[in-house]
Amino acid sequence: MTKAGRHFLQIPGPSPVPEPVLAATAQQVIDHRSPEFGELGAKVLSKVKQIFKTRYDVIIYPSSGTGAWEAALCNALSPGDKIMTYETGHFASLWSKLATRIGLVPITVGENWRGGVDPNVIEAELRKDTGHEIKAVCVVHNETSTGSTTRIKEVRDAIDAAGHPALLMVDTISGLGSADLRMDEWGIDVVVAGSQKGLMLPPGLSFNAVGPKALAASKTSSIRRSYWDWAEMIAINKTGYFPYTPATNLLFGLDKAIDMLLTEGLDNVFARHERLAEATRRAVQSWGMENLCQSPRHFSPVLTTVVMPEGHSADAYRRKVLKNFNMSLGSGLSKVADKVFRIGHLGDINELTLMGTLAGCEMGFELAGVPHQKGGVDTAMRYLAETSAA
Amino acid sequence: MTKAGRHFLQIPGPSPVPEPVLAATAQQVIDHRSPEFGELGAKVLSKVKQIFKTRYDVIIYPSSGTGAWEAALCNALSPGDKIMTYETGHFASLWSKLATRIGLVPITVGENWRGGVDPNVIEAELRKDTGHEIKAVCVVHNETSTGSTTRIKEVRDAIDAAGHPALLMVDTISGLGSADLRMDEWGIDVVVAGSQKGLMLPPGLSFNAVGPKALAASKTSSIRRSYWDWAEMIAINKTGYFPYTPATNLLFGLDKAIDMLLTEGLDNVFARHERLAEATRRAVQSWGMENLCQSPRHFSPVLTTVVMPEGHSADAYRRKVLKNFNMSLGSGLSKVADKVFRIGHLGDINELTLMGTLAGCEMGFELAGVPHQKGGVDTAMRYLAETSAA
Amino acid sequence: MTKAGRHFLQIPGPSPVPEPVLAATAQQVIDHRSPEFGELGAKVLSKVKQIFKTRYDVIIYPSSGTGAWEAALCNALSPGDKIMTYETGHFASLWSKLATRIGLVPITVGENWRGGVDPNVIEAELRKDTGHEIKAVCVVHNETSTGSTTRIKEVRDAIDAAGHPALLMVDTISGLGSADLRMDEWGIDVVVAGSQKGLMLPPGLSFNAVGPKALAASKTSSIRRSYWDWAEMIAINKTGYFPYTPATNLLFGLDKAIDMLLTEGLDNVFARHERLAEATRRAVQSWGMENLCQSPRHFSPVLTTVVMPEGHSADAYRRKVLKNFNMSLGSGLSKVADKVFRIGHLGDINELTLMGTLAGCEMGFELAGVPHQKGGVDTAMRYLAETSAA
Amino acid sequence: MTKAGRHFLQIPGPSPVPEPVLAATAQQVIDHRSPEFGELGAKVLSKVKQIFKTRYDVIIYPSSGTGAWEAALCNALSPGDKIMTYETGHFASLWSKLATRIGLVPITVGENWRGGVDPNVIEAELRKDTGHEIKAVCVVHNETSTGSTTRIKEVRDAIDAAGHPALLMVDTISGLGSADLRMDEWGIDVVVAGSQKGLMLPPGLSFNAVGPKALAASKTSSIRRSYWDWAEMIAINKTGYFPYTPATNLLFGLDKAIDMLLTEGLDNVFARHERLAEATRRAVQSWGMENLCQSPRHFSPVLTTVVMPEGHSADAYRRKVLKNFNMSLGSGLSKVADKVFRIGHLGDINELTLMGTLAGCEMGFELAGVPHQKGGVDTAMRYLAETSAA
Repeated sequence: MTKAGRHFLQIPGPSPVPEPVLAATAQQVIDHRSPEFGELGAKVLSKVKQIFKTRYDVIIYPSSGTGAWEAALCNALSPGDKIMTYETGHFASLWSKLATRIGLVPITVGENWRGGVDPNVIEAELRKDTGHEIKAVCVVHNETSTGSTTRIKEVRDAIDAAGHPALLMVDTISGLGSADLRMDEWGIDVVVAGSQKGLMLPPGLSFNAVGPKALAASKTSSIRRSYWDWAEMIAINKTGYFPYTPATNLLFGLDKAIDMLLTEGLDNVFARHERLAEATRRAVQSWGMENLCQSPRHFSPVLTTVVMPEGHSADAYRRKVLKNFNMSLGSGLSKVADKVFRIGHLGDINELTLMGTLAGCEMGFELAGVPHQKGGVDTAMRYLAETSAA
Repeated sequence: MTKAGRHFLQIPGPSPVPEPVLAATAQQVIDHRSPEFGELGAKVLSKVKQIFKTRYDVIIYPSSGTGAWEAALCNALSPGDKIMTYETGHFASLWSKLATRIGLVPITVGENWRGGVDPNVIEAELRKDTGHEIKAVCVVHNETSTGSTTRIKEVRDAIDAAGHPALLMVDTISGLGSADLRMDEWGIDVVVAGSQKGLMLPPGLSFNAVGPKALAASKTSSIRRSYWDWAEMIAINKTGYFPYTPATNLLFGLDKAIDMLLTEGLDNVFARHERLAEATRRAVQSWGMENLCQSPRHFSPVLTTVVMPEGHSADAYRRKVLKNFNMSLGSGLSKVADKVFRIGHLGDINELTLMGTLAGCEMGFELAGVPHQKGGVDTAMRYLAETSAA
Repeated sequence: MTKAGRHFLQIPGPSPVPEPVLAATAQQVIDHRSPEFGELGAKVLSKVKQIFKTRYDVIIYPSSGTGAWEAALCNALSPGDKIMTYETGHFASLWSKLATRIGLVPITVGENWRGGVDPNVIEAELRKDTGHEIKAVCVVHNETSTGSTTRIKEVRDAIDAAGHPALLMVDTISGLGSADLRMDEWGIDVVVAGSQKGLMLPPGLSFNAVGPKALAASKTSSIRRSYWDWAEMIAINKTGYFPYTPATNLLFGLDKAIDMLLTEGLDNVFARHERLAEATRRAVQSWGMENLCQSPRHFSPVLTTVVMPEGHSADAYRRKVLKNFNMSLGSGLSKVADKVFRIGHLGDINELTLMGTLAGCEMGFELAGVPHQKGGVDTAMRYLAETSAA
Repeated sequence: MTKAGRHFLQIPGPSPVPEPVLAATAQQVIDHRSPEFGELGAKVLSKVKQIFKTRYDVIIYPSSGTGAWEAALCNALSPGDKIMTYETGHFASLWSKLATRIGLVPITVGENWRGGVDPNVIEAELRKDTGHEIKAVCVVHNETSTGSTTRIKEVRDAIDAAGHPALLMVDTISGLGSADLRMDEWGIDVVVAGSQKGLMLPPGLSFNAVGPKALAASKTSSIRRSYWDWAEMIAINKTGYFPYTPATNLLFGLDKAIDMLLTEGLDNVFARHERLAEATRRAVQSWGMENLCQSPRHFSPVLTTVVMPEGHSADAYRRKVLKNFNMSLGSGLSKVADKVFRIGHLGDINELTLMGTLAGCEMGFELAGVPHQKGGVDTAMRYLAETSAA
């Protein structure tokens, strides 16, 4: 009815940018070849490693996450290389399509839009590849289209169990900074990430964290590349500078956002996400609605995808919520278009914003005539109160 | 537990400043004697009249609302003048004390911290003043300390019924832009207002809207004044300028805030406040709690004051809510200190922010061990859903 | 011709607000009764003392500097009290007029729009006042209308030499943070200041720094006051809070601005102003123009006032400069209206901004047909180069 | 000596971002799939065409300009394709190297770091290519490393005169919005541009404007691409949306920046740049210094590159200027490293900022012991005064 008051941006990214981060991005641009920039670059490139839990190089691109997908593949692989993919949802599927477009041969070994990657499938399929034709296993950590989070360590273990040399490439575009990811401990070779989710920045930056095995592979890989090339980036980044003009103002913001995450403490950040996600799931259950993700082991701390009752349009519902309650919810994508909606609960979010969000959902059901049981908001609130610090 | 996410500033002012208003105030300052400033001044001084619903002069001071209280009194009155006041709460009381400090003689004819002004008392007392020693009737439109809103038209009618020439001075510091006020139609002689409530600005500006009778009185009044003097302001304002350096950046914000209010439409703004206030009151009732304001005719659209159960500290409760849920609630002031808390639902607020607010209150009861019935949040939500546009 | 590019705001205040200060003021407002505010208040109230070089209380008003003038007088004095003033220009004159308006009796012992206060006059006149009827000596530190800076220590010495008990009140609205002022060392009883000059803030805050003798006087002074009352401010400020709603967002900015000044170092800040002022004066001399201030001992580090050649309108010239070069210069005020213009070189200013400023002045002479010798810009540049660090 | 005051960012990009543009980028991010975004996208994608003077599609990438170079080549060409390049400086050279890296065969037909492209060479070389093996002529409009501006229409005419079907691809990364470019009128097939120069935005956006011939070529070109692919962009842009997450906040800024350019009027913008560039060149000449660009027909309105006297380090000089005068100048790149410095006079710049800039240069010569004649600043000032509107 009205557009007064704060918009509730409850899509699974971009997530609302905290005021201090917005303010940081609004500082006057500086000379990207100045000593001042060199200090900024060195500082940010170093600090960001803590977020990836890696001691290796993290490359920052001025691009969306889609660019970082391409970067990961085109640096480490050669035309015609086979890669193993697992369709956990729309974004896993898009990454696979992108691979095809740049000349790779993705082999999709599993499909599950209602849960995470099954590591047994990975292991079994890798064992079959006795010739080691598969050069990389590409999985999505947090699948933004469905709300499942794959246990990456299990995938690592599966590859190791199979004794297969494939690289492990992980897309955590919507996971980083919200769901724990331990690049080095978990043996990930390339991590792909973006700025506008758990990092709480506006969109426009993407990341490749590159382990030594991937870096070695990039020396001999033969996909043609320039903008995405790791070698030049890594070489010049050592000085705190970039081979081409960086998105300076987003780097100002990144500097601030990392500080905020580290000040809160990554473990606290992850626990906060888990708790809000659990509250959301309890609300969904109370409403008598179905979580698209059916595997509790893979519930996402980032978003929850709700299946609409048969015969009800998720998009009509979302439009109603937007119009009446000034809240954006995520749409269903591709094969679940109009059948589900997604509640983002990531980034700079707290209990009361979540409560407003869930209230908007529940009131929206009422207004859109979506059959549901009342009480979801109440259930979430009880859970949050019970789990609040004494 | 955490400070992540947006702070819920749910005190009865300052209210959260909308991003476009904050951005407006963050523009580079300009020469207050430049042609550009003259245009800004003329525009703002003209537009602001629509908010007061007056055709007369609105004076803008660089000061807090307390300054505008003093301005109203010291321009229109003379030392030793009697004024009639009515103690509807802490702020009515403070205004009265201020009057004493500057040499006036306030006569408090009624006291009611649980409702608005009783116009019959005003009329009766004025009738007694056959010598017309009372020079002004000073009432608070929206009493920020209690959550009652006096019906100003009734006070006007009471004065008229008594045939008394006293000026009608109205403090709407926390009412303007949230609760309807019609200066000219209701025959108010001086309106006192501030920036940080319904006008959605940071604090630092205050207002006197001055009707012709008050202006005439100011010509002969003999309280010494300089900063607050109407005459010089009105004279110079005609050119779009100010007699001393104005708070230019807050004027930038005021320009934007007025546009936002007029774009939404004042009637829509008031209706939005009324609806959110009603939802809040229904929550309070569901909790089995008492509204400090006991007179439904005087329920405030701006804030709701909740009486804590006997033996429970409102301040301990508020601290708990602040610590655990990152929400600021208003404290009880003066004689209701620690006995009540205040929920602000004014300014740039919408349904979902209110739902988050009420959820924070209800969870706070749980955590602070405050006896209450569950269901307040649910009740408010039902009401908002039912009254939402189809 | 064009409005592209940065506006040069070269009036003697408001001065351009540095980006970090603007950003600080654009933070979301907070509850002025919250613990967070208490910390901010205590921090700012403490730090600001370093700027005044005092160990006594500094009071911060939400008001323009004019308000702080009134505050100083009405707290320490009683109706009918005589005060000694010295007309160094328009603002000294205005302060004197204000005193009259609030019931004091200013006695103007000297007038000099072309230099600072003559301490001999002060001493001589005080010696005549054997009955000690004069309760305060009120002088302007930096006279914004003329560009003279009075040597406050000399005034102090004059008062002491006369053995007179009058309070010393100093207006340094346009001096503080640009010209050295040592409240305690120089024995100033009340310092009056504002936010929008050397403090580099938007307008809207003003200050009274109150020494013990003035504070003692305020206990018995009988001018009626409320908003400006020191006692309540000082009492509540001890807790970090304010008796009425403060201009919170300007306090955010003040916190930042003080940090900037202290980081640069006050002595460096003063030296920077002195050097830029000297460069400006050399340019003026090269142009064959006259500095309104004729006393080198009183040249202002804040602004330079240039006398226009006979028969040429300063205001027409300023309009030309504004239109053609997007620069605001200060106008002549009162008795020098249209006869002089003022170049502000205060606050967040550096060499190149000054060079742009002087170039705008020199080009403006050309365009407006103002007789002048060329070479002012060149002279200033030589001076700045010669005095630049090796 | 000091870092007070505004930094002078006088490199040839990024150029200083105007406050309203920074403020626009600091707005809260929105859902890139919302109706609100669709309106923004449609509006910006439409308006931006006026800046390119085209009726064809303008594609906006979240990337630096380097990405847009790659995009232009990889969409319209196939592996092994020959392209004609002309080394007007470092950036022309880099584009050529990039072409090699992605599998193209650049043929450099001319080299001139001291002027623009010679169209006769283009024509002659194209005539030799009777087999039409050359698929594209790639030239840089404004060469950022040298300060020459090629006359693109002459290149078009040369291609036409040769009757050659090669595409004309033009890099105007540092030219767009500062130097006139008429895509349709001049028959350009692909225009490559960036955000951080004449468009006055922070870096992070780049552009491909795609004419029909290039678009047709892209249908059959066989370089593998995904992120840069025109087809998907153009298809989805028709709805106002983007195939992957756009850099929303930079689009907010772009919207504002285009409005500013169109409000000033493109012809006025270009004239302003030309005039400031001429003033700069006159200063350089007065200093007795050499402009790297020796061809007056190709003088750049965007930047001027100054050759340092033999035996003097340009970089030492720049460091001195940065340290003493808080101004960033551009460094010499590649083969002119340390031998030249570059003065950026583009984007949101006006006369007085240029005068400050030139004063910083001249004072820097003095301080760094660089032999020069005095008077450059004076000369520039005379020119600006003479050419200022009456």
